Amino acid sequence: MNTKVLLMLGILIWPFWAMSDELSSDSSECLDCHSEIHHGIVSHWKKSRHAKTSLAEALKKPPQQRRVSLAKAPEGLANVVVGCAECHTLNPEQHKDTFEHLGYSVHTVVTPKDCATCHPTEVKQYSQNLMSHAYVNLMNNPVYRSLAESSNSVQSLEDTETSFKDPDELTNAGSCLFCHGTVVEVKGTVVRDTIVGEMELPVLSGWPNQGSGRINPDGSMGACTICHTRHQFPIEMARKPHTCSECHKGPDVPAYPVYQVSKHGNKYSSLNSKWGFNTVPWTVGKDFGAPTCAVCHISLVVNEAGDVVAERTHRMNERLPWRLFGLIYAHPHPTSPDTTVIKNRAGLPLPTELTGEPVSEHLIDRKEREKRRQTLQNVCLSCHSSGWVEGHWTRFENTLKTSNEMTLTATKILLRAWDKNVAKGLAQGDSIFNEAIERKWTQQWLFYANSTRFASAMMGGDYGVHEKGRWHLSTNIQEMLDWLEFKTGE
Amino acid sequence: MNTKVLLMLGILIWPFWAMSDELSSDSSECLDCHSEIHHGIVSHWKKSRHAKTSLAEALKKPPQQRRVSLAKAPEGLANVVVGCAECHTLNPEQHKDTFEHLGYSVHTVVTPKDCATCHPTEVKQYSQNLMSHAYVNLMNNPVYRSLAESSNSVQSLEDTETSFKDPDELTNAGSCLFCHGTVVEVKGTVVRDTIVGEMELPVLSGWPNQGSGRINPDGSMGACTICHTRHQFPIEMARKPHTCSECHKGPDVPAYPVYQVSKHGNKYSSLNSKWGFNTVPWTVGKDFGAPTCAVCHISLVVNEAGDVVAERTHRMNERLPWRLFGLIYAHPHPTSPDTTVIKNRAGLPLPTELTGEPVSEHLIDRKEREKRRQTLQNVCLSCHSSGWVEGHWTRFENTLKTSNEMTLTATKILLRAWDKNVAKGLAQGDSIFNEAIERKWTQQWLFYANSTRFASAMMGGDYGVHEKGRWHLSTNIQEMLDWLEFKTGE
Amino acid sequence: MNTKVLLMLGILIWPFWAMSDELSSDSSECLDCHSEIHHGIVSHWKKSRHAKTSLAEALKKPPQQRRVSLAKAPEGLANVVVGCAECHTLNPEQHKDTFEHLGYSVHTVVTPKDCATCHPTEVKQYSQNLMSHAYVNLMNNPVYRSLAESSNSVQSLEDTETSFKDPDELTNAGSCLFCHGTVVEVKGTVVRDTIVGEMELPVLSGWPNQGSGRINPDGSMGACTICHTRHQFPIEMARKPHTCSECHKGPDVPAYPVYQVSKHGNKYSSLNSKWGFNTVPWTVGKDFGAPTCAVCHISLVVNEAGDVVAERTHRMNERLPWRLFGLIYAHPHPTSPDTTVIKNRAGLPLPTELTGEPVSEHLIDRKEREKRRQTLQNVCLSCHSSGWVEGHWTRFENTLKTSNEMTLTATKILLRAWDKNVAKGLAQGDSIFNEAIERKWTQQWLFYANSTRFASAMMGGDYGVHEKGRWHLSTNIQEMLDWLEFKTGE
Repeated sequence: MNTKVLLMLGILIWPFWAMSDELSSDSSECLDCHSEIHHGIVSHWKKSRHAKTSLAEALKKPPQQRRVSLAKAPEGLANVVVGCAECHTLNPEQHKDTFEHLGYSVHTVVTPKDCATCHPTEVKQYSQNLMSHAYVNLMNNPVYRSLAESSNSVQSLEDTETSFKDPDELTNAGSCLFCHGTVVEVKGTVVRDTIVGEMELPVLSGWPNQGSGRINPDGSMGACTICHTRHQFPIEMARKPHTCSECHKGPDVPAYPVYQVSKHGNKYSSLNSKWGFNTVPWTVGKDFGAPTCAVCHISLVVNEAGDVVAERTHRMNERLPWRLFGLIYAHPHPTSPDTTVIKNRAGLPLPTELTGEPVSEHLIDRKEREKRRQTLQNVCLSCHSSGWVEGHWTRFENTLKTSNEMTLTATKILLRAWDKNVAKGLAQGDSIFNEAIERKWTQQWLFYANSTRFASAMMGGDYGVHEKGRWHLSTNIQEMLDWLEFKTGE
Repeated sequence: MNTKVLLMLGILIWPFWAMSDELSSDSSECLDCHSEIHHGIVSHWKKSRHAKTSLAEALKKPPQQRRVSLAKAPEGLANVVVGCAECHTLNPEQHKDTFEHLGYSVHTVVTPKDCATCHPTEVKQYSQNLMSHAYVNLMNNPVYRSLAESSNSVQSLEDTETSFKDPDELTNAGSCLFCHGTVVEVKGTVVRDTIVGEMELPVLSGWPNQGSGRINPDGSMGACTICHTRHQFPIEMARKPHTCSECHKGPDVPAYPVYQVSKHGNKYSSLNSKWGFNTVPWTVGKDFGAPTCAVCHISLVVNEAGDVVAERTHRMNERLPWRLFGLIYAHPHPTSPDTTVIKNRAGLPLPTELTGEPVSEHLIDRKEREKRRQTLQNVCLSCHSSGWVEGHWTRFENTLKTSNEMTLTATKILLRAWDKNVAKGLAQGDSIFNEAIERKWTQQWLFYANSTRFASAMMGGDYGVHEKGRWHLSTNIQEMLDWLEFKTGE
Repeated sequence: MNTKVLLMLGILIWPFWAMSDELSSDSSECLDCHSEIHHGIVSHWKKSRHAKTSLAEALKKPPQQRRVSLAKAPEGLANVVVGCAECHTLNPEQHKDTFEHLGYSVHTVVTPKDCATCHPTEVKQYSQNLMSHAYVNLMNNPVYRSLAESSNSVQSLEDTETSFKDPDELTNAGSCLFCHGTVVEVKGTVVRDTIVGEMELPVLSGWPNQGSGRINPDGSMGACTICHTRHQFPIEMARKPHTCSECHKGPDVPAYPVYQVSKHGNKYSSLNSKWGFNTVPWTVGKDFGAPTCAVCHISLVVNEAGDVVAERTHRMNERLPWRLFGLIYAHPHPTSPDTTVIKNRAGLPLPTELTGEPVSEHLIDRKEREKRRQTLQNVCLSCHSSGWVEGHWTRFENTLKTSNEMTLTATKILLRAWDKNVAKGLAQGDSIFNEAIERKWTQQWLFYANSTRFASAMMGGDYGVHEKGRWHLSTNIQEMLDWLEFKTGE
């Protein structure tokens, strides 16, 4: 075999990253082992934009087309593609999960603070997003935490009642915190046999997890990977509704099932194979024929002339005046993403009174609501006349009102049950979520009112009627009344 | 720059419709503004067949390939493509929503009567379709209207009961009438600031809406856009099951969820990216490997030799002997699409007695049922042997019988509840849908019997058992019995 | 017209199979009629690998790429493609459904025993799979059969109770046996008019059916077509999750709805149009970016270097230590696919005691569980670190434990109801599935515990909480307690 043939053969078996002069030597060393032991991860990454583009290249694009938001590439990161080491060895001193790994200071959990190296604007916006506080707002609010725990507890039969054992960490992590995020901490180390011999590796609590408000070992909150799926991080996927469906599918936040049966969802399901999901900015009509979740709530959207229809935001409620998600009533969005600061007049950490009045000092005012409404409606007006949009909006806000009224009626029945001592509630210092009548009350606002509202907001037809909506909102009240009659004999 | 370069440049920036000599000058004038202010609508329309084909061209096709059903193009419409003005200025004198708009008599709501200009056969068939009467049959039938209103009412707690406030128009429009259709009327005008200055525009009641039985400002009933999505109107979309799912998704008419888990739906989900959804006529095997909703119920279907398997119809029940949808029992299809004319022996506007016997004089007879069965089965026989088809059909008709029997048992329990005065029903002049036991009874036929039947008809497996079917049909009766025992003490 | 033109014309209209020298003359004769009367079936078959490949060709491939598992092609089948006759005339003497058909001994029902001609390894594995015993294990187990029948029975109101009429064969076939499989037997013959005159054809009981444990006229159990959809049999379809969804969709076995909202399902829904579903073996990363059901449970999976990640198996539990599906508790997989041999200490045909302890002598031991766990985890480790996989697994096994505890609590309430004579159960010789409290108990393990477990196993987020999971597991116990209080007055 002559030299020429050997050279050609060498090129053929040369791994593609070795041909690039842009992969850092650190990442190259990672791949030496990990392309074998985590071949799937490496395959995904090879298909990613990270694997192909250096920051310097990314910054050459016109601002509207950029996917990075820093002004200038930091020393050392500018001219390499984003490989393993570029993320997993960032900010080692801030990462309590940093461990010594064959001469490198590596951490497992890549966090928003790490991603902010190239995407600072998005991370800053996200830190103002309710989603980044999903753990804190659930677990540090005694009312909501009690709801979570009453659902996750193991019950044991004792005489005529059951006792509730506080849920263990594993159950919480697989239940509410799957979406809300866990607390990830180093809880020890373990020695494993690997292809390069014994190795000491950290053991993490609350791991794996990609919840939106995950508490990370570097103190940051959130997991970008919940939407930007590792290790390919395809914008196509983040823009498709299936990503949102991972958390917004159940009867409490049924955005996805409502979308599916809406006209928008129908267009997506029927025609999306002909749409473009990878261009930045994203053009109405040219790239897509109907909004996905990202179009209305997040993405930078332009028209065919290049005019901005909506600016990109990772603080989703910039386009949302109302918080549909009743806690326990629908209400204007809170001013702070940390809702644990809210107290109502009764001293409860709720954004409304138990009877529905909003705790205004912690919620956005009319002017801010108006601004957000216009921001969202600007997207609608791409394809709908002002008469259409206003007609829809009037109907939607009326749904907030009537679903709140139906929640109030259920609340009055529960208050009567407590008052008549057939159930134990606030006055008795008991959980307000552990008895059958309390569960019915919770379902009224958490399942049926929410489903009715999401169906109204996104035009989801029957989902808001027979599937999980008005029919159940209405039937549930009659069942609560019957329960009260049976218990009180009145 | 020389003349040649300027000319080439001119061609490049020339909008595509200006290059066509077929866009009417009226529509061209519409686009001058609306391509800016409703850019999404215009983008969709540009992708449509309407934007590319004149009626004269459409009529040159062999009859079987035509998508228009008129015999001869009317004067003035023959040689232009179908642009804005061709639809939105049709029949101005019949449209109560016509308004003066920069010299044109324009209407917002394009109706079946407008579409009939080019598609008369389809509109005529649709007018005989139950769907075109969806508003009338719901709202002008006192029993069904009472069902709708008891669900949509806001309830207020009063002593030990709730009072029901008649639902407002907005709630009805966002609930039942979302699919059934609203009444669209001009209720006033509004002056808006626009890019060409102040403009007086009509304000419509019940708007937006695309319900199948919408009552239009020109007196017609229906909205073709419910399936033929504006403004691209892609036949691909109308033929895909997601379109039907907009209304046929809930537990009352679960055609779509049943289809999804059927073998047919599996083939569609797994393989449809390789099928052809745009050819007319539509060829079994060549164009598609399993039926979508449209194949069995609507489309012109042929075999590879070009023989007709099924003629196109927009009166869906031409291929349906039985009306699965129990009201309150499954029954032969009504002879008239206007079911408000039906009265049973007890004087109720129902197609069966409360005890299940059909009101035969208003329902199709055995001969007509046989004809329709054969029409549908001719589609089945493309891919299934006669033994297969008959075995399936026998099983399906048995399901109609047993699900009707299970409905009768539930009805007898309700009648006993009324009889024993633990619930107020017909004799007491009270709504038969407002109490908990009446809701359970309604769920028996509206949710569980219907789900069982749809699963049987379309081979939906577990949907008809544990999801929403026989398990619940059976359990619900036991729960009704318990309720009766608790209330009567017997 | 000259000879050359005639010849060219002849080639154009020549059917494609006539051009192949590999179609058997028998199959060719089938097609003479059936390409007309069952044109859809023939269209599908023409697209199949069967129609294009002879066994001899299939055996030329390297072993890892083969889709057939026999060692040497049998005489007569080696050099023809797999047409109608190659399957429908196999093993005529074993088929009780064989009938004389224009000189051929044909049978309608192609069975695993027929498929084993070319796919012996797969059929043998499948015969050891629980799914092949789905009919036997349901209908020959008195407890499970009683569950099925209590659900399928027609109830008639008699005094204050209902009587249960044993379900007819048609109802069972359209209900539980749709997935579990029917008994297919020749129950007579019928004479039909056909395009070639009158013809006597067999009439089959339990037909149509493609249930996984179908009892076939040749004595074999199963229907390969449940996943390998006739008559195209595309491996693409078997590998996609929609196939599994036909049976694994309801709240009892919600694998598909859980998958849909998992990260894996999201990747599939968002990106699968770019994946390859037709290559054998199937390569992680290159062919697919996330597992479908088949990746984890069935397929031969390799890495890009060609190393085997998992061997193909049609005995799915080779990769499954635990049987999530509670009957009534989750437990280690049974050693035999025939579970009717199991008896617990109380004499009931259940794999656990009523109080949850496993009947160990019929279940796989710790060592076998460990082996199966490693086999499955080897797939996980392609894309996840060992810390990730172990964290997930620990959480999942904890869910088995807690969901079993919640089942035990419900069982104790039921036992108390029986004990206090407010319901009739085992001691009274009554069905344990026919009363309302028994249905609630059944839903505890069949719906809510199973849903919680599937969501935990496959990371399905909210499906295991609010949709059908922990929330309901917890609420149901409170409702059972209330029921007991109402009935006993205590």
